[in-house]
Amino acid sequence: MSSGTGKSGSRKRAVYPPTDYERIFHPQAIAIIGVSADENGVGFGTGMLRAIMMMGFEGKIYPVNPKGGTIAGLEIYRQVEDIPGPVDFAVIAVNARYVPDALEACRKIGVAGAEILSSGFSELGTKEGRELERRIQDIAARGIRVVGPNCFGIYCPASGLTLLPGPDLSRETGPVAFVAQSGGMSIDLAHAGKWLGVRFSKMVSFGNGADLREAELLHYLADDPETRVISMYIEGIKDGDAFFSELKAAAAKKPVIVYKGGLSAAGARSVASHTASMGGSRVIWHSVLRQAGAVQVNDTEEMAQANLAFATLPPKAFRGISIVGGGGAIGVTACDTAETYGIEIPALPPELQERIGSVLPKPGSSAINPIDVANPFVGPEALKEVLLGAAEDERVELQILVSLLFHYKGLARAFGRPVTEVTPYRELAQCVRDVVAKTGKPVIAVLPNMTRGVDSMDVTELIALTRREYLSCGIPVFDELHDAIRAISHVNNYYGGRIK
Amino acid sequence: MSSGTGKSGSRKRAVYPPTDYERIFHPQAIAIIGVSADENGVGFGTGMLRAIMMMGFEGKIYPVNPKGGTIAGLEIYRQVEDIPGPVDFAVIAVNARYVPDALEACRKIGVAGAEILSSGFSELGTKEGRELERRIQDIAARGIRVVGPNCFGIYCPASGLTLLPGPDLSRETGPVAFVAQSGGMSIDLAHAGKWLGVRFSKMVSFGNGADLREAELLHYLADDPETRVISMYIEGIKDGDAFFSELKAAAAKKPVIVYKGGLSAAGARSVASHTASMGGSRVIWHSVLRQAGAVQVNDTEEMAQANLAFATLPPKAFRGISIVGGGGAIGVTACDTAETYGIEIPALPPELQERIGSVLPKPGSSAINPIDVANPFVGPEALKEVLLGAAEDERVELQILVSLLFHYKGLARAFGRPVTEVTPYRELAQCVRDVVAKTGKPVIAVLPNMTRGVDSMDVTELIALTRREYLSCGIPVFDELHDAIRAISHVNNYYGGRIK
Repeated sequence: MSSGTGKSGSRKRAVYPPTDYERIFHPQAIAIIGVSADENGVGFGTGMLRAIMMMGFEGKIYPVNPKGGTIAGLEIYRQVEDIPGPVDFAVIAVNARYVPDALEACRKIGVAGAEILSSGFSELGTKEGRELERRIQDIAARGIRVVGPNCFGIYCPASGLTLLPGPDLSRETGPVAFVAQSGGMSIDLAHAGKWLGVRFSKMVSFGNGADLREAELLHYLADDPETRVISMYIEGIKDGDAFFSELKAAAAKKPVIVYKGGLSAAGARSVASHTASMGGSRVIWHSVLRQAGAVQVNDTEEMAQANLAFATLPPKAFRGISIVGGGGAIGVTACDTAETYGIEIPALPPELQERIGSVLPKPGSSAINPIDVANPFVGPEALKEVLLGAAEDERVELQILVSLLFHYKGLARAFGRPVTEVTPYRELAQCVRDVVAKTGKPVIAVLPNMTRGVDSMDVTELIALTRREYLSCGIPVFDELHDAIRAISHVNNYYGGRIK
Repeated sequence: MSSGTGKSGSRKRAVYPPTDYERIFHPQAIAIIGVSADENGVGFGTGMLRAIMMMGFEGKIYPVNPKGGTIAGLEIYRQVEDIPGPVDFAVIAVNARYVPDALEACRKIGVAGAEILSSGFSELGTKEGRELERRIQDIAARGIRVVGPNCFGIYCPASGLTLLPGPDLSRETGPVAFVAQSGGMSIDLAHAGKWLGVRFSKMVSFGNGADLREAELLHYLADDPETRVISMYIEGIKDGDAFFSELKAAAAKKPVIVYKGGLSAAGARSVASHTASMGGSRVIWHSVLRQAGAVQVNDTEEMAQANLAFATLPPKAFRGISIVGGGGAIGVTACDTAETYGIEIPALPPELQERIGSVLPKPGSSAINPIDVANPFVGPEALKEVLLGAAEDERVELQILVSLLFHYKGLARAFGRPVTEVTPYRELAQCVRDVVAKTGKPVIAVLPNMTRGVDSMDVTELIALTRREYLSCGIPVFDELHDAIRAISHVNNYYGGRIK
């Protein structure tokens, strides 16, 4: 599959070093080594200090800098040894050549784990860089777990730990774990999760992965009670056998969603300079992931959307669905997409068609399935009747409601009122919530926005508000039908329900 | 391929009826038959009257309703025959059973063409519906061209004609034509084009296509000097031979982008109830479109993005590209995507790497290609140097600049200033424009937005503003790298440059 920068050919590791993950993810006290001694200073250490404070971390924070002083009302300790109490977790952000000493000092005072934000290690491709990283590994092997170097660190909403540039990530905890070498990918997903409604249990950006990395994190997350869905972005792996074995074991317990980057020749080259590991061939990876029972996605958006589907839908396959929306072309597109992903859109029986048709405008509507409600202004109560009706067909196991809310801008203009006032988006979300409660069948909302210009910011806000309203009712929301159907297909594939 | 509702087996039509397209697309005077006689009335006719007036149509407008009266300051004529001057084009929006008489009246007074917005024809699947549609065809054959019925009509920015629910479409004219049975698809694309920067020459939503439809419109657009790019959404076609022949002829002259809907079983069913025509098999269509030299896309977004690429990029294939952005994972993703689409990302020669590297932050950056500028705050002047440098490699024929502008929110927070003030987006667009002018190689901007929540509307607006700024400099903008690369690949495929 691939080999890393270390010795290759190592056997499957069944035993990992004892690790106090509780102290790492939920520390009572943290040290931040490498803050600026200047109150207005910048840098990774200072940035992380501010970010953690803005997140509302409630434990003790001990900043460290040889010059001493104070920062943000906190005393700066001149060295790790001067810290007056126990420390669970450390953030190390000093120049690469000082990192080994800082890490060793942390180990000596009993820190459980450290994240090393600094870069300048094996990713440089230099002898010096590799040597520095080897020293980190040596220290780690003597009793402190390391995340990094060259990473954005750990995000844990429950405790308030956050990624390097992430002072504004959500503090709401949730079922999704994410691990990645890439810090950029981690922060992107954390940001996207915030508005998309994906809540995380913990996120680990492990950069070069000198110590803790993919296989061992999988091993941990597979049994982590806070994590119901595991997702990961992988550029390269260190030990193919161990990874495959952990992946298979984890995927047998809970969904594991994998986005493998660096599958092309240029991609592999880019991986090498990014996080100092090797990529691998597309075909081999595809086959390995399938054999392990993992869910394979191809970009960050698809990853985020799969996270949303697995986190919000019941753990089962949805063989048949209904699609309700105003505008026939959407129905046609939906059918084509559903077929591509092996999902059925059963034609409803005549008596249901008649009942559903009776609440829809005529001519222009069609109640067969996809159900074309003819125009975007059909109200929430009528849509509720439509959804309740379609759910009576036992072949319909999930419903998708597509609302082209941007058309309300026309009504708003005609009435001379704000678009958020003329659009019944709160009622819409409540009606859908009622339908789910009554039928026991999930509904997914799709909110396309065709008007995203500077002169349509009110529509963009309306759609953001509607999304928030839906999410508060437990209804997942996607931008586009294709995205929703693809996400459902991932759920179907994992739970074994794919129609061949 | 497929057969329609009319007689099948007809031979290729080489000769179409004489048609005064100038009077149809650029009318001096229009009649709107079926406005409400009540000033506050609703309905398609009244909606279209208001929409055309809001668009600023400068010709004469003659509303028609048997009750007479006035609407929006215009006299309402009781019948078509009462209209006091010549009429070039008519909008017919009366109940289906009155449509034939209205159309016949238009024909008699010498109207060149009419759009019939009303539904209630063959799409109903009833004998009455089919019979009404046949009467329309008979009248059309005697000397008036018909768009529709069951359609949203014609959008022509130059003249001010607009689609049924489209009072706010752009009046800027441009090189892209679009034809579709689906009105919903047409209005979606017209809305999307407005902010995406796709400008249209003309758009025809022809619904059931009783008279004017895909093959004949292709024949016209192939030689229309206002149209440089033809795009179409097709659900079903009436005459496969004629369509294929016109498609091949048109695609030999200019790019023709085709989105074929209704390729699945359920999709075909949905097509039948939507616009009364038949779909066809996926494999056959794929092969037919390839043989004809058409560009095939799979959804509205891909269509809009392909339109943008063909309208803004020079007419050639781009075999090698550079990708510049901050955040290594993006480079990896880009490489993978580029390989999938047969586009090369050549590693730059060492001397260029060194020169480019000299303006980038260290460590963390990489100047190989993809060029990782290490963080999202690298300024426009430095990016300009990077782009100028990369363009010196003759294998780089196009450049993509990815800017993660949403990270500026952190800076804005730190400085206590609006994000639109701390982000140098105007300078960014100007620098890129300068690069294009100096190098003669196009640059595509990619502006992902990972923060789209209700609490990040300022970032969403920043990105909309940046897009507008780029567009005013002639730089196309995409949301995601994948979208940009896929759009380039369509251009490459059409101009024959695909690397196998």
